[in-house]
Formats: sequence, structure tokens, C-alpha cells
Amino acid sequence: MSSPIRVTVWGENYHEHSERDREGMAQRYPDGMHGAIAAGLSELLGDAVSVRTATQDQLEHGLTADVLDNTDVLTWWGHATHAGVSDEVVDRVHQRVLGGMGLLVLHSGHFSKIFIKLMGTTCSLSWRNSADAELVWTVSPSHPIAAGVPQPIVVTEQEMYGEFFDIPEPDELVFVSGFSGGEVFRSGCCWRRGRGKVFYFSPGDQEYPVYHHPDIKRVLANGVQWAAPTSADFAPPAVRNEPGPLLAGRLSGPEVSA
Amino acid sequence: MSSPIRVTVWGENYHEHSERDREGMAQRYPDGMHGAIAAGLSELLGDAVSVRTATQDQLEHGLTADVLDNTDVLTWWGHATHAGVSDEVVDRVHQRVLGGMGLLVLHSGHFSKIFIKLMGTTCSLSWRNSADAELVWTVSPSHPIAAGVPQPIVVTEQEMYGEFFDIPEPDELVFVSGFSGGEVFRSGCCWRRGRGKVFYFSPGDQEYPVYHHPDIKRVLANGVQWAAPTSADFAPPAVRNEPGPLLAGRLSGPEVSA
Amino acid sequence: MSSPIRVTVWGENYHEHSERDREGMAQRYPDGMHGAIAAGLSELLGDAVSVRTATQDQLEHGLTADVLDNTDVLTWWGHATHAGVSDEVVDRVHQRVLGGMGLLVLHSGHFSKIFIKLMGTTCSLSWRNSADAELVWTVSPSHPIAAGVPQPIVVTEQEMYGEFFDIPEPDELVFVSGFSGGEVFRSGCCWRRGRGKVFYFSPGDQEYPVYHHPDIKRVLANGVQWAAPTSADFAPPAVRNEPGPLLAGRLSGPEVSA
Amino acid sequence: MSSPIRVTVWGENYHEHSERDREGMAQRYPDGMHGAIAAGLSELLGDAVSVRTATQDQLEHGLTADVLDNTDVLTWWGHATHAGVSDEVVDRVHQRVLGGMGLLVLHSGHFSKIFIKLMGTTCSLSWRNSADAELVWTVSPSHPIAAGVPQPIVVTEQEMYGEFFDIPEPDELVFVSGFSGGEVFRSGCCWRRGRGKVFYFSPGDQEYPVYHHPDIKRVLANGVQWAAPTSADFAPPAVRNEPGPLLAGRLSGPEVSA
Repeated sequence: MSSPIRVTVWGENYHEHSERDREGMAQRYPDGMHGAIAAGLSELLGDAVSVRTATQDQLEHGLTADVLDNTDVLTWWGHATHAGVSDEVVDRVHQRVLGGMGLLVLHSGHFSKIFIKLMGTTCSLSWRNSADAELVWTVSPSHPIAAGVPQPIVVTEQEMYGEFFDIPEPDELVFVSGFSGGEVFRSGCCWRRGRGKVFYFSPGDQEYPVYHHPDIKRVLANGVQWAAPTSADFAPPAVRNEPGPLLAGRLSGPEVSA
Repeated sequence: MSSPIRVTVWGENYHEHSERDREGMAQRYPDGMHGAIAAGLSELLGDAVSVRTATQDQLEHGLTADVLDNTDVLTWWGHATHAGVSDEVVDRVHQRVLGGMGLLVLHSGHFSKIFIKLMGTTCSLSWRNSADAELVWTVSPSHPIAAGVPQPIVVTEQEMYGEFFDIPEPDELVFVSGFSGGEVFRSGCCWRRGRGKVFYFSPGDQEYPVYHHPDIKRVLANGVQWAAPTSADFAPPAVRNEPGPLLAGRLSGPEVSA
Repeated sequence: MSSPIRVTVWGENYHEHSERDREGMAQRYPDGMHGAIAAGLSELLGDAVSVRTATQDQLEHGLTADVLDNTDVLTWWGHATHAGVSDEVVDRVHQRVLGGMGLLVLHSGHFSKIFIKLMGTTCSLSWRNSADAELVWTVSPSHPIAAGVPQPIVVTEQEMYGEFFDIPEPDELVFVSGFSGGEVFRSGCCWRRGRGKVFYFSPGDQEYPVYHHPDIKRVLANGVQWAAPTSADFAPPAVRNEPGPLLAGRLSGPEVSA
Repeated sequence: MSSPIRVTVWGENYHEHSERDREGMAQRYPDGMHGAIAAGLSELLGDAVSVRTATQDQLEHGLTADVLDNTDVLTWWGHATHAGVSDEVVDRVHQRVLGGMGLLVLHSGHFSKIFIKLMGTTCSLSWRNSADAELVWTVSPSHPIAAGVPQPIVVTEQEMYGEFFDIPEPDELVFVSGFSGGEVFRSGCCWRRGRGKVFYFSPGDQEYPVYHHPDIKRVLANGVQWAAPTSADFAPPAVRNEPGPLLAGRLSGPEVSA
């Protein structure tokens, strides 16, 4: 597809305004986490993308039918207010993914309604917020999402996410992280669902400036390109009553007469 | 585990009583489809299993907390009344699967609430009911579910189920069926979800006596053994706040000082 | 990569000259099978590729170090003279694949030395040459190799290849074929090996004009684009003695003192 | 299968006798590493297995046709003298694996001829021998090989093996290790090849007493049970000329007349 990939960067936009976090967030992310993520994509992908943002506090969480109808890839960062996302919007996003939209689920988005609905599991994990170092190792060097990133990506401070991560076995496992506490985590995972693609990438806690890290920005940019749809038709798979056989077959031969 | 696998065979038990189907069903399945499936498992697995049945028309669809607490493997056949299964029971079954219970989803159970919830996709497919022959080919000969079945299993008459089958890519693909109309179908698929295992097996329309077929009975018996839990603990994975690191690590060396 | 993908289409070029086949081949493939495959790629991909051919009867089978050093994607069709391919050339191709070159293995190439070496299995299958119809069904509709092909691709006459196909489970299964004889076959399979990608696609027996089929040409063009390397560095993975740890860790806490 | 699993524990038996290592080996492994591994299997599996050992210095490396004909599962530890293993024996083991024999490849066996032949890749990795702590995390808790092991297994001192590990993507990824240096490694990996099963497990350097660790012994015992064949027939898959179709099919309908 030669036209730009239409990306919507969705942000919970809670920590940016909460009493506890707003000061630190303003320093790390003056335009919000969604603003930083959007800026990173535009910086790295230029004319290849057309990026907008949407946040949970907007009408219909900023994900109206019209917005989704014009979104090729959606990125999702949420944490504190997953339960406040309306089921109707979740269903709408779910249908769009099954129809072909790419979805990047980021960090604490592992517990979002949309990710749990797509995975079918609890999506639970182990965690500890103690400013661990995180090393992000590539285990699939020919994967397009790993193109141009060092081995390993070094994130000097980050919340620890550890196994067991209760997800379906990834269709493609791209990154595995190690933490200074000794934990490991499948931190970059791909799945296909319906006609759409899903990429989960774990680095990105709100208390650390991870989305300004050049290698992390590269991974997100690669992820958007990988997840972009290959078709302009966004109809989810549907049941189909086949009118008639293409082959006029019948059992032949004595060996199957029983 | 040396004690018997506790199997609950769940049946929708609708066609058995519907005006349109009851006569044919009484001939093909005098004890109901669930009765036939249960009898096949007991016949082939003997003392290795303890089999009971449950049906949708029972209180809580026969799947009370007590029944599920004593079920290692659940088999699920439904078709006409998926929507009538209560969400509460579906959630209960879902939690039990994530905790380790095996689940065999049969034929039109592809559209059951529990299967869709576990898969995260539409689970739609193509179909045609024209008494096609179905040949069930093994594509994973070392898989325990394929043990002792011929190449191919020949089902002389069966509803056609064809691709595209909208499921997550199976963790283990065991069988692929070909139909006399030229269609193909991933008819034997395994997934791991949480601590539990799921096996989908498609042959088994109510209008054909498929569950009396010796090779089909063998597949179901193998499936029960494969899906049986490896632990007596049925707690689903849960989020865990790690109290402290096992390793006292810190970044070392100048190359990561940035 | 904005520069053209450098494709080398390799042909055994035996049937084109054998007494038994040369007349029919001249009608179906006046420029050889390799010529037809190369023409199809150029027709569909235009400036995005730079295509040349090489054949087994050439010096070093046309796959000198220089040719391979300038090949991004290699396609391989062989059948009657697999044993005549020198081990030295096979090792050279193998190293190039592990270094990042894409490889498309076509039809009877399943028994080529290079495919067996990359797969580690016998790569055996069932077959019958009786002009069966082959229907090629897409089972991964979001896969780039399936973009723009109908469901199913209809090949009116073709040799039958059937299961069990003794290959490692594909990393990505794109197509499954059904035949008029009732057989099925995993006909479009992807693997990653080292830093390279391998795509096997089965339609294409020399006795049928399959490589002129527009949908088959589309699959090959998609396959070349999918298999193209993401890096200009073609060094295979190599053992590496890590000089020192990135993290200065030690076991901490009494619980691990044992 | 109710009869005991016939296990052959194969050892290189080099470090046990080399001038540099023999003293330390005698302390850690007075009966050789193969002796310790064999003793662990017998201790944990009792009558369920019948265990013998074989070593590289024996005639035909102790792997005569007769020994292999009576082996259900082979475990392989080698390191310093991979090149000294004869290709004839490697081919014999390869055929037996494709025919259904289970194979456990241990630690430095990643560079053995048999593993490379089965994988098709370089099997290279990163390493550092600096007595790192290794934490072995389960990422597939329902997998039988993970039954009964703690989360994580703590190995207090061990050689570091790190990514990128150049292997085909595992069919089933069971364990991922983290090291005190920050590295990660896919340390427990399953593949199916032909009719056989392969399990690679990395903990086990000769300089540390890893095979006396109760959890490591448990993993090996689980691995043997998982890899055991499901059939008494050990013929590798072979090409098969199908005599005739099971279905007498032909293309039907105007839509395929083109």
C-alpha cells in the first residue's frame, strides 16, 4: 500500500492528570505518553504514516466508529482505569482488529479489556517496581520488528514484568527481556487474530521515560509497519454457507465401502 | 496421575428432543449424543477414566461449581442453543480451563460461547450439509492424539466444514480434513490456555452417526488423555507482586552507562 | 530497502532437454520453467526486483560465490537430478540462507539437498500423477503471501502431493491444498532459519503449465517479497564468547542460599 | 505403553579422562556425567524406565544398530570431541529419531552433529564461563516437562548460555533462563522431527555439579517421558506413490471452467 499507514495512538491519559503523578509525568511526558509515542512514530516513519492521538477521557474514548474506520493500526496504553473503558468501544475495536486493523498493546495494556478479549487468557504476570535494569534480547533476528535494534536494547530503569505471563503461545516471539533481579519476560510477542495482527511490547512504565529511548521508538515504528493491514477491506471473517462443491466427488474403491 | 481422569461429557441435548430431529436422533443416538460420546470413552479407556454426562437443560446446565470442581476434562457439544448458555456458567468453565481443566470442543461447538471466549476470534467457518465424504488426515504422526488411527480416517457421510476457519493458529495441528467437494479444514487443533489444554475436533454432525465410528472414538479417547491436567491444583494464573529480586543486580561497565 | 530485490531463479533444466519430456516442455515452457518463473516475477513486481536465472548445467550450477553474494532471494526448482547437485554448492547456499537470503523451494524441490539440509527431516510425502484438480486454500488470510489471491486458487490439473509431508511444523502455515482424490497437503509453508526465511510452495509439476497461472504467479511474487532480507549484512549467526556481563548480579536472599 | 521406556544415556566421556579436568570430574561425577544422569533417571522413574549408558570411546560409540534398535529415548551430552563422532553413527541416530525415538540434547550438545543435522541451523549461541547464577523460568506451566518443578529453578553456579541461540523456533518453548549477567536463553525447547521428538535442555556444564540438582533431575525425567515414542514401529516417514484416489472427484460447476 503506497498511501500512509493511518495510526491512532490511544492513551489512557490518567497518570498525566492524577494528583500523585502529574508533576513527574509533566517532566517526563509534557505532551502525555500518547503524545510522546505519536511523536516517535512520526519522527521515524515520516510520510509513511499519518498519526493522530485519542484518549480515554474523550467522547467514546476518542474511538468513534468514524475514527476506527480510518485507522489502520491502533496503539494502546492503559493502566489504572481499564475497567472504565466501555464494553461497546472494546467490541468495536475487537471487530476492527478481526477485520484487519493492526493493534500494538503496550506495557500495562496487558490487562486491558481488548487484550484479554483477544487472548482469551488472564494475561496476568509477575511485577515489581524497583527501577530494575531491563535488557531486551532479540530471539528472532530476521523478524522485521527487530530490524535496526541493538542486541540487547538496554533500558536502564524500568518496572519489572516477569514470567509466568499468561498469554497464548505467541505466533512469533521476537524479544525476551532479562531484568537485574533475575527475572525473564517474553516482552515482544506477535499474534494473528482474524484478519488482523497484534503485537505486545512490554517496556514502557509511566514512571520512566522509556518512550523517549531511541531503540524503543524504533521497535514501535517497526511494529506499526509489521501490523499494517495488507488489504483495504476490513470485514471480519464470517460464517459462509457454501452453495455447492467445487469438486463433484464421491467415495471410490472397495477399500472404503465399509 | 494414577487415579482415573474425571470426565464430564456435556451435551446441548436439543436435537434429541426437537420435533424436527427427534426421530432420527433416537435411531442414531438412543442415549443422546452425550450418551454415545460417554460410552465411547468408557469403552476405550476403561478404568483410566470416570465418566459422567451433563446437559444444557439441567440446573446450571449441569455444570455447577461442584461438578466442575470434580472435572479434569470436559467435552462440549452444542449447536442450536449456544445463546441460551448462561454467561455465568461460561465464566466458570473458562476459569476452570485456565486453572488446568482439559476441554474438548466438538464440531458445531466452534460457535459456543466458551470456545469463542478462549480463542478471541469469530471462530467462523464455511459449511455445507450435503453428506460429503470426509477424510481426516494426520499431519503430526508423533502426536499422542493421532496414536492408533488410520491414515486417513474415512467418514463416509458428514457435514462439510471448510476454511477459512477463524481461529488462532493452533499450537499443535494434528488433523487436516479433505472433503469430497474439494474443501479442506483444520479439523484437529490443540491450544494451551492458562494452565489448561484445549482440543477442537470437527467431525460430529448430529445428522450422521459419527460418534459411533471406531476411529473417531479413538481420537476422542486420545484427546481426553492428552488434555488431562498434570497437577491437582486448579488455580488459574494470577498477578503476583514479587517481593524482591532473586538476584541483586546492577548495570555494570561503561558500555551501558548511557 | 528501497533498492530492487535481487532474485536468482534456479532451474534444474533437465526435463527441458530430456528425450521423454522435451517436446511437451517446449510447448508449456519455451523458455524453460526457470524462464517462466522469472518472467512472472518481473511481470508482477517490475522495478521492485532484479531477476536473473541460473541452471544446474552451468558452471558451479550457476551459483558461484559471486552470484550468491548478489542474491537476496533464491528460488529453487529441481526434480530428477537432485543427487547431481554438488555438496559444495549446497553448503554455500545453506550458509547464505542462514545469513539472511530468502529461499523459495518449489514443488519437487522438497527432495532437494538444500531443503532437506534446512529442514532436518526426510521431506517425504505421498504423490500420484493423475491430473487431479488442486484447490489451494488460504488458512492465514492476513499473511502477506496470501495477499490478492482468491479463495481457493483453482489449479485444474496438477500432480497430487499428499500428507504425511515430513517437514518440521511450519512457523507460518499459509496454504492447505485439497485434491480431487480426497488428499490434503500443507502446500504453502514458511520457516525462519538462522537470519533467513524459507517458503515452500507445492503447485508446479513440470507436466502442467502451472507457472503460467496468474494466481500462482502472484503467490511466488508475494513469496519473494516476504522472503527478502531486512538487512544488508549476510553473516550467519556465529558463536560468541561474551567478554563480560552487562549486569553485575549475584544471588541474594536466604531463599536461594541452598 | 506399559513396558519400561528403554533409555540410553550417551556421554562423550572426555572431560572425565582429560588431564586438565579429570580430578574435578572425579569429585563432581565419580561415575561420569553419563553415570550421574542415568542414576537420576532411575531414581526418579524407577520401573518406568530401563536405563543403560553408552560412551563415545566405545565401539561405534556404543550406538550399534542393536543398541539403537532397543532404545526408545536417547540422551546426548558432548562437548570437546563432537568432530570425532562418525557420520555413520550420526546418520543411524538421525534415522532412529525420524522413526520415533526420543532425543534429549543436553547443554554443549547444541553443537553436536546430530543436533545440527536435525535443526538445519548453526545452533550457535553466546556463552561465558564465569560461574553465573542461572534461574530457569517456566513459560508453559501446563507442559508435562514442567510438572513438579519450582518457579524458578535456581542453579547457583553455571556456565552462561545466551541469545541469540540459532535454532528453529521451538514447537513448544518450556523454559527460559535468566543469568546474573543479564543474559537470557531459551533453555528448554521441544521439536517434533519425523515421527520423533527432540528436547533440548541447556543447564549442565561439566564444571558444575548440575546433574545432581534435584530439579534438574526432575526435568530430565519429565523429558524422557515426554519424548517416549507412542508406537512400537520405528520406520521413518517415506515417500509413497498412492495407487489411486479415495475419492473419485472432478471439477464441477461453471465457476471453475476457466
